[in-house]
Amino acid sequence: MLSKSQIKLITSLKQKKYRQDLGFFVVEGVKTIKELLASNLELHALYTTESFNIDAKDEVLISETDLKRISFLKTPNTALAVFKIPEQTPVETKGLIVALDDVRDPGNLGTIIRLCDWFGIKQLVCSKATVDCFNPKVIQATMGSITRVNISYVDLETFLKDTDLPVFGAFMDGENVYKKQLPQHGVLVMGNEANGVSKAVEALITEKISIPRFGDLQATESLNVATATSILISEFRRG
Amino acid sequence: MLSKSQIKLITSLKQKKYRQDLGFFVVEGVKTIKELLASNLELHALYTTESFNIDAKDEVLISETDLKRISFLKTPNTALAVFKIPEQTPVETKGLIVALDDVRDPGNLGTIIRLCDWFGIKQLVCSKATVDCFNPKVIQATMGSITRVNISYVDLETFLKDTDLPVFGAFMDGENVYKKQLPQHGVLVMGNEANGVSKAVEALITEKISIPRFGDLQATESLNVATATSILISEFRRG
Repeated sequence: MLSKSQIKLITSLKQKKYRQDLGFFVVEGVKTIKELLASNLELHALYTTESFNIDAKDEVLISETDLKRISFLKTPNTALAVFKIPEQTPVETKGLIVALDDVRDPGNLGTIIRLCDWFGIKQLVCSKATVDCFNPKVIQATMGSITRVNISYVDLETFLKDTDLPVFGAFMDGENVYKKQLPQHGVLVMGNEANGVSKAVEALITEKISIPRFGDLQATESLNVATATSILISEFRRG
Repeated sequence: MLSKSQIKLITSLKQKKYRQDLGFFVVEGVKTIKELLASNLELHALYTTESFNIDAKDEVLISETDLKRISFLKTPNTALAVFKIPEQTPVETKGLIVALDDVRDPGNLGTIIRLCDWFGIKQLVCSKATVDCFNPKVIQATMGSITRVNISYVDLETFLKDTDLPVFGAFMDGENVYKKQLPQHGVLVMGNEANGVSKAVEALITEKISIPRFGDLQATESLNVATATSILISEFRRG
């Protein structure tokens, strides 16, 4: 059975403040937990209704009732794991880097992390106001990709001022991306869901690009940020 | 003030069964409601805390408390509208058509509808088990695009058997889409989130295509369906 203090610790990890103070984050679902166990991440504790056959000191067998108490999901899976948040590693300075300017939706960030993994993008740079990548909804949406992409939270303006790479950004009035020769090394900046790229960051973009709209004049004004990111990364990679 | 029966009618529209029985669906948010008012859709009633200055017989000014009672959102907007579900119009038989084989997530369907609108795709065909496009979460995610894309729920196997168009589908072992000459007329089939395209539908695909994975062997096994759809539609349109 779980103690009150264990339950309190785990449920507190829903909040960024406590994740940062305690240095832990939560993962649910057998498949994702197994992926994370096979990675470099350090397990703190595994709470499960069915044994994973791992070192017994790391595993706590619990009842479904206890799992319901600690789960962040409406329909809990059979296991919940607490991992240590890894230390930030230095930011990559070459290759294709994706930079997010205040992306707020956990589902969007999770989808973008999975996308980076698929397309072999090693570095994702996030502004400080971008949603925390250890948010449980982000972890859920990444499907394990979080272990394979280096995610760094930085002062985005300083990062863009300091980089030697060309800085691309998506704008309605940018150059048609289908007609542009894209380099192998560069930063692709994507903006906030409601406001796009901020003025301060826009001033640091060296190449404005756009995805042409084929619908008529009444068509939607914008694409979802994860959708636009997928099309643009695909354009960089297709060569 | 709203009567009990009005509240009951509106909240029942969360469920597909009642939407189909009553022929109504709910839209929330001033911006999306205005887009739908400007379309061919027929308004049944508008409940709002601030007047839209439309014909008074269609508009009911209500309190925030009443809005909370009828809203499907955690943080209600200032208005909720009930529109009539339009009659199904005939399925387009030319151009690029997107077909969904049991896509279940409302956010994914909403994103795909918005994507079709952006890329000027007039026809979306959905298998009967695909999530209902008048589900409030779908409507929310489409940002008004639902008025500009013809969405038809059909027996997908029959539709694919009957079409003269080439039928494309995304598979891990398909031809590299970046190297393929894609036609202007065709059907692009996208599968279910967990299981992909069903065996019965797979047998009707004439051209298997794939988005190359650039990540290493450990990289994610798949892309989210809305993400993959965006990349493939972009490939069809870029020429």
